[in-house]
Amino acid sequence: MALHIALDAMGGDRGPEEMVSGAILAVRDSAPDLEITLLGDEKRLRDIMAAQRVSSSRIHLVHASQVVAMDESPFDAIRKKKDSSIVRAFALHKEGRADAVVSAGNSGATLAAGIKLLGRLDNISRPGIAGIYPTLKGPLVMMDVGANVDCRPLHLFQFAIMAAAFSQVLYATSRPRVGLLSIGEEGGKGNILVKKTHELLQQSSLNYIGNVEGRDTFQGEVDVIVCDGFVGNVCLKLSEGLAEAVLGMLRDEISKSMKAKLGYLLARDAFSSFKKRVDYAEYGGAPLLGLKGNGIVCHGRSSALAIKNAIRVAAEMARNRVNDRILELLSADQALQQEELGAAAASAPEALA
Amino acid sequence: MALHIALDAMGGDRGPEEMVSGAILAVRDSAPDLEITLLGDEKRLRDIMAAQRVSSSRIHLVHASQVVAMDESPFDAIRKKKDSSIVRAFALHKEGRADAVVSAGNSGATLAAGIKLLGRLDNISRPGIAGIYPTLKGPLVMMDVGANVDCRPLHLFQFAIMAAAFSQVLYATSRPRVGLLSIGEEGGKGNILVKKTHELLQQSSLNYIGNVEGRDTFQGEVDVIVCDGFVGNVCLKLSEGLAEAVLGMLRDEISKSMKAKLGYLLARDAFSSFKKRVDYAEYGGAPLLGLKGNGIVCHGRSSALAIKNAIRVAAEMARNRVNDRILELLSADQALQQEELGAAAASAPEALA
Repeated sequence: MALHIALDAMGGDRGPEEMVSGAILAVRDSAPDLEITLLGDEKRLRDIMAAQRVSSSRIHLVHASQVVAMDESPFDAIRKKKDSSIVRAFALHKEGRADAVVSAGNSGATLAAGIKLLGRLDNISRPGIAGIYPTLKGPLVMMDVGANVDCRPLHLFQFAIMAAAFSQVLYATSRPRVGLLSIGEEGGKGNILVKKTHELLQQSSLNYIGNVEGRDTFQGEVDVIVCDGFVGNVCLKLSEGLAEAVLGMLRDEISKSMKAKLGYLLARDAFSSFKKRVDYAEYGGAPLLGLKGNGIVCHGRSSALAIKNAIRVAAEMARNRVNDRILELLSADQALQQEELGAAAASAPEALA
Repeated sequence: MALHIALDAMGGDRGPEEMVSGAILAVRDSAPDLEITLLGDEKRLRDIMAAQRVSSSRIHLVHASQVVAMDESPFDAIRKKKDSSIVRAFALHKEGRADAVVSAGNSGATLAAGIKLLGRLDNISRPGIAGIYPTLKGPLVMMDVGANVDCRPLHLFQFAIMAAAFSQVLYATSRPRVGLLSIGEEGGKGNILVKKTHELLQQSSLNYIGNVEGRDTFQGEVDVIVCDGFVGNVCLKLSEGLAEAVLGMLRDEISKSMKAKLGYLLARDAFSSFKKRVDYAEYGGAPLLGLKGNGIVCHGRSSALAIKNAIRVAAEMARNRVNDRILELLSADQALQQEELGAAAASAPEALA
């Protein structure tokens, strides 16, 4: 089956040159049936491709006259900029001319465009963004990491299903261990949202291992961590900041002595391997889950390598039908979700509607 | 002014020996007017002191026949175990025979005992626990880090006031920069709780710098970070876990080559200095703020050094009257808080009551 990825060539802090380089790497390193369409300013992209001497027949161009800026309000941007590269990318997917979308642009706008053009997967209340973390063992999928800041238990329950399906399909975990992010391992611990979600997950068909704490995140003892998008986004940014701060403080101390500096020179390869191990560029961006289609949002700072990896993951999502797996897991717990929906509708309107 | 610290000698994972050692370090390194009373099993403590050849006239004993376990429900434990070391410690403070309490035991029970015996500071809705973080510059105070998991805007507002007062008094920051933990720097970003808190903080007399993100935490550009206790506790544990994982992965990579191992040996002192810099033991535990009195809860794993530092911080809290500063800052924004209380009472009952 030929696979076709729509790449938003105007997204990302490093400009379209980096996106084109990412596309070139992707076609070089992938199976010969992978094709990529770059969406963006056609003339500019054609010049970049000429400068980079791209001659691949597997890279195509589709013109889009507008660009969504990083700080634009997602829904406004999508409504107003119908000819933006990100909207055009999802339109291509919608028309069946692409199997997945990759963007390093405004992540809120990317998700909003996905929801508007592709629609939500059947019975999914809230599509969201999953984050992939390196751990001492394999990769960990955390969801949601920023799309849904005020959530109900059913939303978190469905994040668990979507992230588990992704982990199964992408990392071949047969029964992904699902943990609920909380502040104590006992089921009684946490805020109201977490306590209610715990009850739902306990009754589910998922391989639910109970509450997990932040310190478990990087140990590799859990494959999926569920949280609301506020907490997930705080964790994502804290992790980035802390890893940088740890290395910064270590460098500080090393710079204080000649002996330590020499030691650092000797151990430099180990530091590089370490950096590679924790580099988000290796993990290929954050999958959008819950859409009638496949999408990946990448970090704004994404390098060509990160884009290449995101294209690889997007292709795997499409080829191995992550959405079919999500639908299977959803239907296994359908009665439970119906019950929860009924209970939520019967209760008084909540502040966190 | 003589200062008297009540130390819960039965708290902590390392046993009363470690607490006694901490008390000895504290009287050695402090001004001669500091006295410490150990609360716990008198016979056992007397034996430990004999074994450690403690002869200081500045260390006293008060018997308490019960111990609150780490996993006990805080409120049950406090109600049932009236002769526990932690309850007795606060009773001593209440009677005016101690100026502050330090415990490395069950932190929920420590706060609950403080609230029950000392009461809340006037006009404070929710006392809480502040966390002290090392940053690339000075220490950062984050509040709440676990006591209050479901919060209203007024609670977060008061956490800002209490943490700012603590930062002013303990770290001599004249106008502490207060940030609100969110998922974007613009005021419109965040969940419902954060958006409403942002509006309150903007109108306050505090030096409010707006929303901050997790990645700002360790840069030293902010003195106080405000969040609810669920998010704060997740961050606290994530930071611990991540720092360990970063060092673990680095060690992993270093162990793969002889050259890197040699380099590590040369840079070992730098690694030690780094560890000391991020070691929570240096920061003296987490202050309980909002009580009619002074308290510190320490990490369960606290060493004698951590206990010594906690005793130092507790003495500073009492000597420099953190609570007077909290009351001053509270009264500066009294009208704003009254208005918010009125608005909350007038609105429909919230799910997060």
